[in-house]
Amino acid sequence: MSRARVHLFDTTLRDGAQTAGVDFTLHDKIVVARLLDRLGVDYVEGGYPGANPTDTEFFAEKRTERARFTAFGMTKRAGRSADNDPGLRGVLAAEADACCFVAKTWDFHVTHALGVSLDENLRQIRETVRAAVAAGREAMIDCEHFFDGFKANPAYALACAHAAYEAGARWVVLCDTNGGTLPHEVTEIVAEAAHAVPGDHLGIHAHDDMGLAVANSLAAVLAGVRQIQGTLNGLGERCGNANLTTLIPTLKLKPDLAERFEIGVTDAGLASLTQLSRAFDELLNRPSNRYAPYVGANAFATKAGIHASAILKDPRTYEHVDPAAVGNRRRLLVSDQGGKSNLLAELARIGVEADKADPRLDALLAEVKAREAQGYSYEGAEASFALLAKRALGRVPDFFAVESFRVMVERRHNSLGERVTASEAVAKVRVDGDTLMSAAEGIGPVNALDLALRKDLGRYQPYIADLKLTDYKVRILNGGTEAVTRVLIESTDADGESWTTVGVSPNIIDASFQALVDSMVYKLLKAGAPAEGQPS
Amino acid sequence: MSRARVHLFDTTLRDGAQTAGVDFTLHDKIVVARLLDRLGVDYVEGGYPGANPTDTEFFAEKRTERARFTAFGMTKRAGRSADNDPGLRGVLAAEADACCFVAKTWDFHVTHALGVSLDENLRQIRETVRAAVAAGREAMIDCEHFFDGFKANPAYALACAHAAYEAGARWVVLCDTNGGTLPHEVTEIVAEAAHAVPGDHLGIHAHDDMGLAVANSLAAVLAGVRQIQGTLNGLGERCGNANLTTLIPTLKLKPDLAERFEIGVTDAGLASLTQLSRAFDELLNRPSNRYAPYVGANAFATKAGIHASAILKDPRTYEHVDPAAVGNRRRLLVSDQGGKSNLLAELARIGVEADKADPRLDALLAEVKAREAQGYSYEGAEASFALLAKRALGRVPDFFAVESFRVMVERRHNSLGERVTASEAVAKVRVDGDTLMSAAEGIGPVNALDLALRKDLGRYQPYIADLKLTDYKVRILNGGTEAVTRVLIESTDADGESWTTVGVSPNIIDASFQALVDSMVYKLLKAGAPAEGQPS
Repeated sequence: MSRARVHLFDTTLRDGAQTAGVDFTLHDKIVVARLLDRLGVDYVEGGYPGANPTDTEFFAEKRTERARFTAFGMTKRAGRSADNDPGLRGVLAAEADACCFVAKTWDFHVTHALGVSLDENLRQIRETVRAAVAAGREAMIDCEHFFDGFKANPAYALACAHAAYEAGARWVVLCDTNGGTLPHEVTEIVAEAAHAVPGDHLGIHAHDDMGLAVANSLAAVLAGVRQIQGTLNGLGERCGNANLTTLIPTLKLKPDLAERFEIGVTDAGLASLTQLSRAFDELLNRPSNRYAPYVGANAFATKAGIHASAILKDPRTYEHVDPAAVGNRRRLLVSDQGGKSNLLAELARIGVEADKADPRLDALLAEVKAREAQGYSYEGAEASFALLAKRALGRVPDFFAVESFRVMVERRHNSLGERVTASEAVAKVRVDGDTLMSAAEGIGPVNALDLALRKDLGRYQPYIADLKLTDYKVRILNGGTEAVTRVLIESTDADGESWTTVGVSPNIIDASFQALVDSMVYKLLKAGAPAEGQPS
Repeated sequence: MSRARVHLFDTTLRDGAQTAGVDFTLHDKIVVARLLDRLGVDYVEGGYPGANPTDTEFFAEKRTERARFTAFGMTKRAGRSADNDPGLRGVLAAEADACCFVAKTWDFHVTHALGVSLDENLRQIRETVRAAVAAGREAMIDCEHFFDGFKANPAYALACAHAAYEAGARWVVLCDTNGGTLPHEVTEIVAEAAHAVPGDHLGIHAHDDMGLAVANSLAAVLAGVRQIQGTLNGLGERCGNANLTTLIPTLKLKPDLAERFEIGVTDAGLASLTQLSRAFDELLNRPSNRYAPYVGANAFATKAGIHASAILKDPRTYEHVDPAAVGNRRRLLVSDQGGKSNLLAELARIGVEADKADPRLDALLAEVKAREAQGYSYEGAEASFALLAKRALGRVPDFFAVESFRVMVERRHNSLGERVTASEAVAKVRVDGDTLMSAAEGIGPVNALDLALRKDLGRYQPYIADLKLTDYKVRILNGGTEAVTRVLIESTDADGESWTTVGVSPNIIDASFQALVDSMVYKLLKAGAPAEGQPS
């Protein structure tokens, strides 16, 4: 039996941008579009060109290679021709392969919110689709409130879907805008919709207000729909959209679905999913959900001793899929042995060779556990982890030592009577027996400290000349008065390599200092700088 | 049509205790059992008496008033009589109304993991149920791996279920132990199981490894099952169990389900759900999931201006249920994407009266937008928003002015040769014409600044004496060298009120300073402190 192709439509950058607390910059959008393109989704909806400067600039050029780059907009307004509607013109001017327009399909909304006649709304849908097709774009219509609209007036909801299809829309997407539709209702209503629009032109857009967005998406596919709209990590307004990070492995790994349906994500794409999910959370600067299906840190964690020993005999006893298939790993929380094999696997992965029998590995494992208990996290800071491991194995020479530093922030009135805040730092560094003292001003205390530390490293200065800080993240652990601060610093150099280091302390300046020094040492090691006292 | 009674079985204290990072004390268990009892679940499974001292002590007395207090255990071992099995004896000795025994129903597990014959396993199930009934307990059997077992050997899985029922089990619970079963498979397999055991004796126990635990529980109920096992906030091994906090409102509020099924939770119990969910997270000392269905802080939050104005006209347009029904509330985010209607609604909610026609509101909206563009976010900082609004409306008097401050962090060797990092701050504050200068040391620069600012506020000192910092959060916006820092500070006072303030600056100390001062001014306003120059 040939498998039906199911298309994945990602709306992280549009509906996901509606999430409370989420605010994508242009740079964020470019990075996310690249991630999605590499993952293998079919459509990347990038935003609403014309609605705000960020989205307009994002659509100044095509941002995907494989995926169809999609602009979102509204159907044209009543009383204007398509040519004469500035909103529609903005969307069609975007450098996009496809356009997705939201249209009302609930009669009550049409007459009360839009304030137009039911016929006029159908006309708007048709004309908008035709204008997009005429402009050479693949057209689709998001049928807002389709399921609620169907319950209120089935004939009208179907008429809207049919109008879009008939006018040439490639996709007619059934939206459960409020997230209040149950899976068995989705099954029934999709079956009805398939009389108005062929299934291979239907899409589903589900929200998670009852924790059912993934189930509703699957129910729709089983009922004949061939496009799923969703987001990375389930981002989206209120409780979020259907989580593609969950749906992708389910569609690829569950035999009953994989035999019937095919998606554009390859096995390699699937294996990158855990890393991609966490990188996305890093970009949002929020902690990853440990309990997330497939990609969460706990998704394959087993605490019960009896389950753990069964898993060691045969993983299928308590694992429904292989964690490696999604790039995740098994965690047996009771087994120290498991800890060491995890450590060895991790060292191998980052290219640190170690003999399994080396007793220094036990000390390293104890050190990692102790530091993680303090708040260090090496999952996102591999450069610091590599340094820690190499130090334990005696492979990091002494280069320089920071004897002391002082950072000062002052807010005062300047000579013009303006309020200014000044930051300056002084650092004393010992290199080959000499003490070098440097001072610098910065835009903040960490910037000043960074500049002072890197201002004069004596004969090591040439090795770090191309070192650049590219990102700085702070997370407060615990909170309250016993707060501990974790700082992550990302650095890069002329090779284009980038690496991340971590520091932890109750004092944010101290935590930043640790991460800055780790980054400098990592760079010296990488550049092959000679050890202290050794000739260059 | 009379409604079918669906029984809720809570396993937060048993399967929920398998969550990585969760460790209930005896006191925790007593508190949670009381919460659940008050909520109105039918069964509270408290743990495994005999397996560890906490659980044994917990079962020394009955811990619920209304709910049936339930002990968990394993079916008796092979080669022993029920009387002679210490595990079983421990469970039956517990002060419990009901006992739930886990039994294997997947033939492969019976022969390979248990190492007994298929017939022997059936005998163990029967004898265990009979022993529990003879001891005066309501008996139930958790059929481990029932769905996987059914796929491998349907006749044997059904024989296990039937054996339990025939021996007198009140409930036979079908467990998707690995969380790998799809909703349509649940529907089909439950229909088969109902031939072996009547539906009103069947239960469902689902795990969330594919984000489908809630959907699978509903599918089972629609297929005839009458008991649902789940946990508060979806706690549980790996990705968690079916989330009762989600299922309860769905069963009570969705017309299509509420017309057919009845549960033991009253409307008042439902209205306590948000508070209960957050209290439970507090007990676990973890942040609440903002995106949780029904009870999350964002569950009824709307950012898009067009949605917000529709909600103000008629909430049903973008809300599938009334937030008050679950004890939650609507939030219209004052944001870049929102408009004046959001602003007015938000002012009304926080108790700031304003005339819709007041021209100062336009200036306020422009100010909010300009500040949000700089990185301020008022979604989580209502106290700063209230101050901003009241200032725009001329309702915040001058109290004090910070003339200057200086913060210093120094890392050096102390007199014992140890490396120490010291932080100190000096602040100059002007109150009623006097300049007051204070200095303080802290564990970090922000702590030092906070202490120095609040050390001497002259005649305002008594008003802020009970002000306490309870949380401090930092977010770096943009990243890289143009990073802007957003600081959120949560404060509280003797009244128990807590409020959050925000500060934004490229300099983290400066951002913290803004949030600290906002918190102090908020407290002075709240305490009714007199304006500068006015008599106390």
